[in-house]
Amino acid sequence: MRDPRYDLLFEPVHIGPVRTRNRFYQVPHCNGMGHVHPSAMARMRGIKAEGSWGVVCTEECEISPLSEFSPYIEARLWDKRDIPALARMCDEVHRHGSLAGVELAFNGYSAPNRYSREIPWAPSNTPVRGYDPIQARAMSRADIKQLREMHRAAALRARQAGFDIIYVYAGHDLGLPFHFLTQRNNRRDDEYGGVLENRVRLLRELIEDTRDAVGDRCAVAVRLAVDEQVAGGLTRDGEGAEIFSMLAQLPDLWDVNVANWSNDSVTSRFASEGYQEAFLLGLKALTTKPIVGVGRYTSPDTMLSLVRRGVLDLIGAARPSIADPFLPKKIEEGRMEEIRECIGCNVCVSGDHTSTPLRCTQNPTMGEEWRRGWHPESVEPVSHPNRALVVGAGPAGLECARILGARGMEVALVEGTRTLGGRVALESRLPGLSSWSRVLDYRLDALSRLSSVEIYRESRLEMQDVLDFAAPHVFIATGSSWRRDGLGRALRQPLPGVQSLQVFTPDDVMAGAVLPSPVLLFDDDHYYMGSVLAERLAAQGVEVIFVTPAPDVATWTHNTLEQHRIQRRLLELNITIIASHSLMNVTPEGVVACCAYTDRPRFIPAASLLLVTSREPEQGLYLSLSESPEQRLSAGIETLTLVGDCLAPGTIAAAVYSGRRMAREFDAPAGSLIMRREIPQLEVL
Amino acid sequence: MRDPRYDLLFEPVHIGPVRTRNRFYQVPHCNGMGHVHPSAMARMRGIKAEGSWGVVCTEECEISPLSEFSPYIEARLWDKRDIPALARMCDEVHRHGSLAGVELAFNGYSAPNRYSREIPWAPSNTPVRGYDPIQARAMSRADIKQLREMHRAAALRARQAGFDIIYVYAGHDLGLPFHFLTQRNNRRDDEYGGVLENRVRLLRELIEDTRDAVGDRCAVAVRLAVDEQVAGGLTRDGEGAEIFSMLAQLPDLWDVNVANWSNDSVTSRFASEGYQEAFLLGLKALTTKPIVGVGRYTSPDTMLSLVRRGVLDLIGAARPSIADPFLPKKIEEGRMEEIRECIGCNVCVSGDHTSTPLRCTQNPTMGEEWRRGWHPESVEPVSHPNRALVVGAGPAGLECARILGARGMEVALVEGTRTLGGRVALESRLPGLSSWSRVLDYRLDALSRLSSVEIYRESRLEMQDVLDFAAPHVFIATGSSWRRDGLGRALRQPLPGVQSLQVFTPDDVMAGAVLPSPVLLFDDDHYYMGSVLAERLAAQGVEVIFVTPAPDVATWTHNTLEQHRIQRRLLELNITIIASHSLMNVTPEGVVACCAYTDRPRFIPAASLLLVTSREPEQGLYLSLSESPEQRLSAGIETLTLVGDCLAPGTIAAAVYSGRRMAREFDAPAGSLIMRREIPQLEVL
Repeated sequence: MRDPRYDLLFEPVHIGPVRTRNRFYQVPHCNGMGHVHPSAMARMRGIKAEGSWGVVCTEECEISPLSEFSPYIEARLWDKRDIPALARMCDEVHRHGSLAGVELAFNGYSAPNRYSREIPWAPSNTPVRGYDPIQARAMSRADIKQLREMHRAAALRARQAGFDIIYVYAGHDLGLPFHFLTQRNNRRDDEYGGVLENRVRLLRELIEDTRDAVGDRCAVAVRLAVDEQVAGGLTRDGEGAEIFSMLAQLPDLWDVNVANWSNDSVTSRFASEGYQEAFLLGLKALTTKPIVGVGRYTSPDTMLSLVRRGVLDLIGAARPSIADPFLPKKIEEGRMEEIRECIGCNVCVSGDHTSTPLRCTQNPTMGEEWRRGWHPESVEPVSHPNRALVVGAGPAGLECARILGARGMEVALVEGTRTLGGRVALESRLPGLSSWSRVLDYRLDALSRLSSVEIYRESRLEMQDVLDFAAPHVFIATGSSWRRDGLGRALRQPLPGVQSLQVFTPDDVMAGAVLPSPVLLFDDDHYYMGSVLAERLAAQGVEVIFVTPAPDVATWTHNTLEQHRIQRRLLELNITIIASHSLMNVTPEGVVACCAYTDRPRFIPAASLLLVTSREPEQGLYLSLSESPEQRLSAGIETLTLVGDCLAPGTIAAAVYSGRRMAREFDAPAGSLIMRREIPQLEVL
Repeated sequence: MRDPRYDLLFEPVHIGPVRTRNRFYQVPHCNGMGHVHPSAMARMRGIKAEGSWGVVCTEECEISPLSEFSPYIEARLWDKRDIPALARMCDEVHRHGSLAGVELAFNGYSAPNRYSREIPWAPSNTPVRGYDPIQARAMSRADIKQLREMHRAAALRARQAGFDIIYVYAGHDLGLPFHFLTQRNNRRDDEYGGVLENRVRLLRELIEDTRDAVGDRCAVAVRLAVDEQVAGGLTRDGEGAEIFSMLAQLPDLWDVNVANWSNDSVTSRFASEGYQEAFLLGLKALTTKPIVGVGRYTSPDTMLSLVRRGVLDLIGAARPSIADPFLPKKIEEGRMEEIRECIGCNVCVSGDHTSTPLRCTQNPTMGEEWRRGWHPESVEPVSHPNRALVVGAGPAGLECARILGARGMEVALVEGTRTLGGRVALESRLPGLSSWSRVLDYRLDALSRLSSVEIYRESRLEMQDVLDFAAPHVFIATGSSWRRDGLGRALRQPLPGVQSLQVFTPDDVMAGAVLPSPVLLFDDDHYYMGSVLAERLAAQGVEVIFVTPAPDVATWTHNTLEQHRIQRRLLELNITIIASHSLMNVTPEGVVACCAYTDRPRFIPAASLLLVTSREPEQGLYLSLSESPEQRLSAGIETLTLVGDCLAPGTIAAAVYSGRRMAREFDAPAGSLIMRREIPQLEVL
């Protein structure tokens, strides 16, 4: 059981009229389910309570169509019709003894009201955030009064839904109360603008209103960004601390972080655990109210230290609670080595950006709790225990073997090389990606405790080996290789003349190839690989010319909040970026690129070509087996399943998910795999 | 009543087992409502049937979670639970005597399955369309069999929902059957790849399957793109026509267009009415089956000519049916001058791209039919007819006056200048935007037939004039002006040193200002204005340096399918584009820009500066009135309302919408304006 050293983390904390069961606090985080997939959202939150998160909060919760966040899917409390969905979440959380919090949000000019078509509100006239071709209007005093009434009414609905903690949201430079705080957004000359006391007025009033409305039964929390890490923005040592001081005793709980979201949720590529501590330090001295803060904390000792040193009262987590909904319970039960640590990749965030349910690289059950009935810590045993062979110990193979083992199968996991982990072992050695090895750490630890799984290394299997092994269930997880002909999104035929230059792929670079300089790196992949390879080559002194058909570098990483940091880093490394260009052909002296708009050619001298375009599944073994049904039959092979990248190359998250899914579903009865969903109720005619 | 010349357009057409009431055919089009807002979608379609569109189709309709289009909101027929929503649409359409069509769609690698997480399918291994970091996998024969079964089952569900016409979708380079047709997507070496006959096989099978399943009662339509307007793509005179010929007699109806979507739905800035005719010509000679095609047709004479000359049997329309759901009825009733012609701006398309209900510049009721009870051709009379004053005859003022007049108010519409139309009159003289004057054409015609509205020009009103006029209801629609200090999205404080150079705004250019060359055009607006001004200046021989903080030019126009064409045009005009840069300060010799990523400064010599950043509402008159409540009272002014850009600057669509909304809602009883919505039905516990 629990090491008494950690008792401190399991003390209850009083937050106004409520009391937590421990110090583990899931701060509000988006999830791409929200009001559109309410039971799915509720179950996901409930499982965190089951895993001993003492407080479990919603995502941002709209309080009115006057500020709605479509197409982003958040929570919604516009009127009483929205109460049952959130009551369901509260029930799920309460059932496990935790508190439920709701982050009421009115986002002003950050939300262009694409659905409701209402004019967004702001302290002063301004174009909306983002590129929508509309402007927000300066609020009148009547608007401010209406906002306060709407916020109060929403707080009452939240209490009715069963929430214990009700937020006033002034975080991330997203909430309207935050816009009022900052001079660059607030150019008013009335009592809500000008000196800081005036700019704080609206936030103060909303806190008072909320306490007045629901403070008898609910705690009032404030989520405040105390630093913006941007020129002209709030700073922790300037107005950030001043605002905090002015309101220090007003809420029951402070949820403190930094703005904007990309600074709050930095990936492990750009920041380490605890990166927000500098902004949190010293705030506790300014208030007697409890403080929760975040920093991608996964280490129990770091958590302990934060409480001991008086930095935080409650350990906040969004991403670590997604990667491991049972993190607190594992500490509670002395199973620290079983913690599935967040790798900080922000694939979870992409769910919000694409308005689809979040996913997690480490926790493939995330978002699947309700619709597929998956649980992060348990899995149904097979009805007919039997032998299984898993070929390939990359992320898909490891997860597949682990789940098969946990389900009671007798598993042989066979890896062709000396190293376990496949692409993860290789990629986690690239610049900034070392935390990604946690995908392996967790699984290798889990496998070490599963006596039902045997691991064999340096055993590259041919078809005959598989037949000889004669396992009834064979899973092929042999991964994929990067193409060396340029085929991908932009080029639908092999690049003409590609062999005129030395051509390399990411596989070559990861295997240690030395590339003649200058290198033309063609990134038609648009996720992280092109940019981390560019970083690595630059560090080796190689001159890199980065060509991409997209208008910016690593364009998909807008979805992981990384794009700006990545392009800045490449520019600071003096890497030449040629955006909006594809390739036409290759010559011995270099490459002819062409403008994505005009097709105008442009010759780029280069000594080598690094193609980051697409991957080809390694299906050799699979195909030889699948094309030999009789031999399979006589070897007793009943099922043959492709898993992970060798089914279809994708993210590591997709590979882990595939591993889990195939291990769960290979023996599922036909028709048993219907995904649950909730659909709109038609108006009665 | 109807001019007999147009009788031909009102002949019924036999389509397999069904018969249309006339030749007006609303082809499938997205709308941002679909399965998420089913009654809203159904009512919108029903109103088109009421307006005499003989056939009214859905948008793309998903047939399975194996190819779902989240977050794009389309129709859905995954299983029988989805039938009632679409049955509602069929009922709405049938009630008015029209036929209902459904476009069954399985989009393979065009749809990354963000919601379902299923591996997308494709003829051959490929990254998915767009930038999602996953790949689609080559379909096995078993997959093809499964696809055919799913398509057949969906067709049966569609028949059960009540549809009369059922599509096999091979358009826009989006549908998987289309991917099989093209060599750049299909690298297979089995009977579904290689020679054209093989690549056509899947499409042929799906047509046959559909006819076999539902052909007794439903017509089978094929939507086929016969030309792709891209190097290496299908061409009308090559494989496009060959494919058409091979399948000529197989479906009951051909719905022919071009790919991709940006070529099918070209804006008026880049193509005129009938721009698809060259691709349609001659197809009728190859088949005895009826053909429907599109080309943004709004002219009854052009429509007549198309049928007469044997180009088309049915006049297809998406955008013209959005701008005027009653277009056919107006021809039918001899009210041609009342047609509200599509201006070809593609604001409607942005609804799909932002997963929110579509809107229309010309028809502000679009998308509001169910949720706000709006009708494109009628409006509820006021309960207390009275006098109203509308100040300003831009798009908002014109629409406001028109609706007030139609509701029975006695309206004075007072314009300060000689010209009616405000910004629309000015902007429609900019390069490529002449069709936008249709916003005025329609409204001026309508106002000319409304005896209750008097128009006064060249009458700039001061507060005292308004008080003297003593109308109980005053609407201020005085528009907005472009800021000349740089304030906008990127710059939150005025640009330092801005007066060191000659500074211009779009208002100046539209007023005929001559700009010293070279001009640095700073576009922080990101819609059309920056690029059309650049075009205009370039045509005047002015050297333009186009600076934008976004990574590409006019970035919001991705949502109107224009971005690629706009950037190509600017590049072809030799306009220098400096993307991802903001401005730091201005000197007498030029402007210091700075990299949006690194803040690195960069001096750009320029003789003048054109700032396209944000607008300030013209609220002088409003403020003087609103700050004088007693004078208002004694003048008998009961309501004072801001309308359009002077409330909050936005699109022309937003201005027209505001005009309509204020004219409808100024006398609405409190609490009567709740927007209807449908929300997910919670699973019963």
